[in-house]
Amino acid sequence: MSDKMKVAVMTGIGGMELTERDIPKPQRDEVLVKLEYVGICGSDLHYYEQGAIGDYVVEPPFVLGHEPGGIVVEVGEDVSDLKPGDKVALEPGKTCGHCEFCKTGRYNLCPEVIFFATPPVDGVFQEYVVYQADFCFKLPENVSTLEGALIEPLAVGFHAALQGEAQIGQTAVVMGAGCIGLVSLMALKAMGLSKVYVVDIMQKRLEKALELGATGVINAKEDEVVEKLQELTAGVGCDLAIETAGTEITTRQAIQITKKGANIVLVGYSKSGEMTLPMSLVLDKELTFKTVFRYRHIYPMAIEAVAEGKIDLKGIVTDVFKLDDVQKAMDYSVQNKADIVKAVIKIAE
Amino acid sequence: MSDKMKVAVMTGIGGMELTERDIPKPQRDEVLVKLEYVGICGSDLHYYEQGAIGDYVVEPPFVLGHEPGGIVVEVGEDVSDLKPGDKVALEPGKTCGHCEFCKTGRYNLCPEVIFFATPPVDGVFQEYVVYQADFCFKLPENVSTLEGALIEPLAVGFHAALQGEAQIGQTAVVMGAGCIGLVSLMALKAMGLSKVYVVDIMQKRLEKALELGATGVINAKEDEVVEKLQELTAGVGCDLAIETAGTEITTRQAIQITKKGANIVLVGYSKSGEMTLPMSLVLDKELTFKTVFRYRHIYPMAIEAVAEGKIDLKGIVTDVFKLDDVQKAMDYSVQNKADIVKAVIKIAE
Amino acid sequence: MSDKMKVAVMTGIGGMELTERDIPKPQRDEVLVKLEYVGICGSDLHYYEQGAIGDYVVEPPFVLGHEPGGIVVEVGEDVSDLKPGDKVALEPGKTCGHCEFCKTGRYNLCPEVIFFATPPVDGVFQEYVVYQADFCFKLPENVSTLEGALIEPLAVGFHAALQGEAQIGQTAVVMGAGCIGLVSLMALKAMGLSKVYVVDIMQKRLEKALELGATGVINAKEDEVVEKLQELTAGVGCDLAIETAGTEITTRQAIQITKKGANIVLVGYSKSGEMTLPMSLVLDKELTFKTVFRYRHIYPMAIEAVAEGKIDLKGIVTDVFKLDDVQKAMDYSVQNKADIVKAVIKIAE
Amino acid sequence: MSDKMKVAVMTGIGGMELTERDIPKPQRDEVLVKLEYVGICGSDLHYYEQGAIGDYVVEPPFVLGHEPGGIVVEVGEDVSDLKPGDKVALEPGKTCGHCEFCKTGRYNLCPEVIFFATPPVDGVFQEYVVYQADFCFKLPENVSTLEGALIEPLAVGFHAALQGEAQIGQTAVVMGAGCIGLVSLMALKAMGLSKVYVVDIMQKRLEKALELGATGVINAKEDEVVEKLQELTAGVGCDLAIETAGTEITTRQAIQITKKGANIVLVGYSKSGEMTLPMSLVLDKELTFKTVFRYRHIYPMAIEAVAEGKIDLKGIVTDVFKLDDVQKAMDYSVQNKADIVKAVIKIAE
Repeated sequence: MSDKMKVAVMTGIGGMELTERDIPKPQRDEVLVKLEYVGICGSDLHYYEQGAIGDYVVEPPFVLGHEPGGIVVEVGEDVSDLKPGDKVALEPGKTCGHCEFCKTGRYNLCPEVIFFATPPVDGVFQEYVVYQADFCFKLPENVSTLEGALIEPLAVGFHAALQGEAQIGQTAVVMGAGCIGLVSLMALKAMGLSKVYVVDIMQKRLEKALELGATGVINAKEDEVVEKLQELTAGVGCDLAIETAGTEITTRQAIQITKKGANIVLVGYSKSGEMTLPMSLVLDKELTFKTVFRYRHIYPMAIEAVAEGKIDLKGIVTDVFKLDDVQKAMDYSVQNKADIVKAVIKIAE
Repeated sequence: MSDKMKVAVMTGIGGMELTERDIPKPQRDEVLVKLEYVGICGSDLHYYEQGAIGDYVVEPPFVLGHEPGGIVVEVGEDVSDLKPGDKVALEPGKTCGHCEFCKTGRYNLCPEVIFFATPPVDGVFQEYVVYQADFCFKLPENVSTLEGALIEPLAVGFHAALQGEAQIGQTAVVMGAGCIGLVSLMALKAMGLSKVYVVDIMQKRLEKALELGATGVINAKEDEVVEKLQELTAGVGCDLAIETAGTEITTRQAIQITKKGANIVLVGYSKSGEMTLPMSLVLDKELTFKTVFRYRHIYPMAIEAVAEGKIDLKGIVTDVFKLDDVQKAMDYSVQNKADIVKAVIKIAE
Repeated sequence: MSDKMKVAVMTGIGGMELTERDIPKPQRDEVLVKLEYVGICGSDLHYYEQGAIGDYVVEPPFVLGHEPGGIVVEVGEDVSDLKPGDKVALEPGKTCGHCEFCKTGRYNLCPEVIFFATPPVDGVFQEYVVYQADFCFKLPENVSTLEGALIEPLAVGFHAALQGEAQIGQTAVVMGAGCIGLVSLMALKAMGLSKVYVVDIMQKRLEKALELGATGVINAKEDEVVEKLQELTAGVGCDLAIETAGTEITTRQAIQITKKGANIVLVGYSKSGEMTLPMSLVLDKELTFKTVFRYRHIYPMAIEAVAEGKIDLKGIVTDVFKLDDVQKAMDYSVQNKADIVKAVIKIAE
Repeated sequence: MSDKMKVAVMTGIGGMELTERDIPKPQRDEVLVKLEYVGICGSDLHYYEQGAIGDYVVEPPFVLGHEPGGIVVEVGEDVSDLKPGDKVALEPGKTCGHCEFCKTGRYNLCPEVIFFATPPVDGVFQEYVVYQADFCFKLPENVSTLEGALIEPLAVGFHAALQGEAQIGQTAVVMGAGCIGLVSLMALKAMGLSKVYVVDIMQKRLEKALELGATGVINAKEDEVVEKLQELTAGVGCDLAIETAGTEITTRQAIQITKKGANIVLVGYSKSGEMTLPMSLVLDKELTFKTVFRYRHIYPMAIEAVAEGKIDLKGIVTDVFKLDDVQKAMDYSVQNKADIVKAVIKIAE
């Protein structure tokens, strides 16, 4: 093993470049992971296209990528749960462990979190990474490192389902059939829900949703969504809605189609950051809005769900790129958002 | 006792009239209550001024009033918990007991509810009413029927506090210091919260809030609300916000001033029914919106809180009118909304 | 249709007799159901053998049976959700709808409940029954009335799983592989749990558990239960235990094998009513004991789970008897408790 | 300031001795605290008398004491929330922050916890201690370091109340009026419960309970507890019981006197570790047993409750000893268990 590794850096808006850096050494409680796959997330594309998300501004050279799966190659002396050769999924946020949020188990809200590919913290479009062992989750034999990389978006789907208190017997609707919509669908199905409808405007995505277990799909370009869902639920409406499209129109539909007392889980960010919503109707129905910021305590459960065959994670991958082709991967992803469900970078040759 | 009673009917928008009706007889599971006080609620005024709230349209002659306190005068043969002479507060919605919502304990969402003064169901601006015994709650000796009438708005305050999962040790803010804002404040204080701030734009109401136990008040006309609350909470923000003002600006402030992971309870209806809100910020902070539609399971607890001196319900009453002056009561209430915290009709001479 | 029906009555301890009674007429909110199958429950056998359960003493002639499935033949005039020809499962407890427990959604604790085959309320080992429509749950086409009868025990299993807050990703153990143990196992699996171990002392029952989806089984006669479960869970222990055997030894094992902070759900009644338990260990591990008394809000969910193929209810039926053979059915059931998982009476020819 | 400090060590069963040790230096994230008061807990006495609690065996010389209050005298370079001169209460368990329990907010169950005065970890009957800053909670001006020391037992009381989901409007009973019974009582009252009854067999303790806010007390030597509580609750029973006496008889009474569906919180350890309980009654009433192992997330709330005057912590202190008199303090405490509610060591002169 050389002591240098290849790293893909963003050199500015729309620019990627391969460079070389030293392979880091693990501290006592850390492991060195040889990365095999890293997913490309919408936020990576957003940084790539815009150079910033809100107050998080990219200062080049910056490393994107926060959905990593790989193989442990070296462990620090205090690490006992992992050993070289173990396949792992890395949960991309290291939290402080000491703040009010960490202590109360809501570590995803930790203000001191160090999160891959969130400026100024570098991500993992690179060959190796050193990481705190307790955020590296061992994959069973029948789970690949490609699936390991995709545990990250799946964790969002599970967190959405749990925030919504999804339960067997409920009828749910997922607004949006992009990557997060599809993992939400799969999480709901894995938790025992039989009736999960999916709404989108792209037929291709809706077909994917059907493949992955949707009870029914609605193409909002062709059908009136609320009417159609009323029909599908025999006029009763949905017990739960997960909104991943991030639009006012879908959020409004979620409000209209849910039953009184229902939970609506908001996951999708709107472009402007603002939405105009029928809040009086929300009150009349005594709805609850839950929201999703990343996830917490999900990795072990999500890995088990994949290992047990409850979730077909590979089913969402539409595109695989080599690390050497990272510029092309990013450009293609930006240009084909509608067609790509999930693209990943294959790091190892 | 005569067999006729006085009833105040709304004869059209802005018109009230006294009329006479037969005193009804209780069925097996009912009681006949001689009313002593009935509160005037914002919804009564709304019907009076506009003739409708949403799809609920007044067909005159219509009886307003749904906040009743009185004395039992006769009981049906199956009633064992109440006897003539008992003071009672009447919970104004009779629910079906059979639907999904009733069976799961969320009876306030019962679609078959029969609710006083919600068209076409008459209210109780009248001398007597027959009502199902299990929605008549006995008042202890030290709780008056005036207070009994006010259990209704207090129930909204407690439901808001419970929906928000209010807990000792939290810092809360109540947006709006009208009747519902003040009962929310009192509910929070009764549940052990030490730090409850109240925001309004009318100094008189804020003074009332201080009298009733607010830790601090903010006049939004004079101070920048978010900044001021940041200062009062040493930069930490609030654990809980109860929004009773029903405006976009106060809802927005609630979003800005709460801590990550906090609950915001929406109680106030906006005029247009719509609000434009910074939903991306809601997601970034992983906030939860809970909402309040009436209340459930609150009367016994609310009555006890008053009996135990935890809540100064009389403290919110600013105006008392006679039943004979009901026209004046309604007109004055409409014209002096800003000055009135709570007006009641004294039914019995 | 004749106006008389066959009814099996218990004439005393160990005695059953067929008699004839009038077919009742439904009231406005009731339906008349022609029964097709009624399950035989352990409590039926207990009344048959002992004449009483605790304070509930059989006064002959008494009708046993509280697990009914049948077909609607007539509906009262206020019934709109059901029509003649509908297959239904009957939830056997009619609750008052007015008490504290009903109003808060915990109707299974209603002190006024009228529950089939709980003295002095007759059960349904008979051809017809009139019942309140909102406790008759329509079965979809692909669910039989045999399965409809078995929704009752399944409801106990689901209530146990829900009381235990069962969740995908957890490792659970079910103590006891009788009818209730097996429905608990199936409920857990349907809710997405991958790892559910079952403990019993009868190999035949354990084989049934494996057939119905158990991840692994432990024969407590052959293996040391706690040690074996430690081994199966890699030393971690279980997140959840459901105790259906009603013995001190299995309850003790549940305490020993669960992880800190875990839930143990107690479903099985012990013979003496008392248990000696290591309560200091319960405190050291900060365990929670949840308990199960019947069920609430489960029928629709349980029926859907069967309809969707998540639960193989027929798989637990080992014996079917004719109504005419009710004496034999009871005697055989008493004598072969160890071999019978679930026996049912086929009412209709 | 000298660089040596006085330390009281347990030299064996029944033996205490003062010795001198170096004053430690704080690491980057630590503070050095000059202790002013340290409470004497039942577990300290148990180690002193028996040399062990379960598997935790004292190896002399060993330092007892885990209820410390003091003043910060030096802070590590990374500490920003505390400064020299700040009064603090020290939460006595340092947790790992990385295990499943820590990450899910149940850090009191952390298997890696380092807890004062739990062998082999030394306690704080000494003049100074270095401690991790995030477990040192600043006391407001109006809270003394004596009260700071007593935050520890109060935290147990609050954790018990929260585990029991105590809520305004409930009627509660506390079994046992020792230190933990009394802090539970005070926690319940602070959370808004009006009706809290206390049961004990020592009149002196019951009088203390009345002083501290009990609604009523029952001397179990004089009155039949269940009957008396039935009478006091008008036959309704209690919504919540907190059992701190650690006896079978009081646990049994708790089971008998609670309403259906109620929570019973077990806090007291029984001598033998075992209890024989009427578990069938527990099932019939569908009771829940919650348990208490130390506490989590309580210090800030408990400190605020004291600062706001909701809790009279000084009211439980019956005996104060000097550090130099530690032998006498321990001996006296052992010999006068019945009379002492709470004894503390005054460390600073």
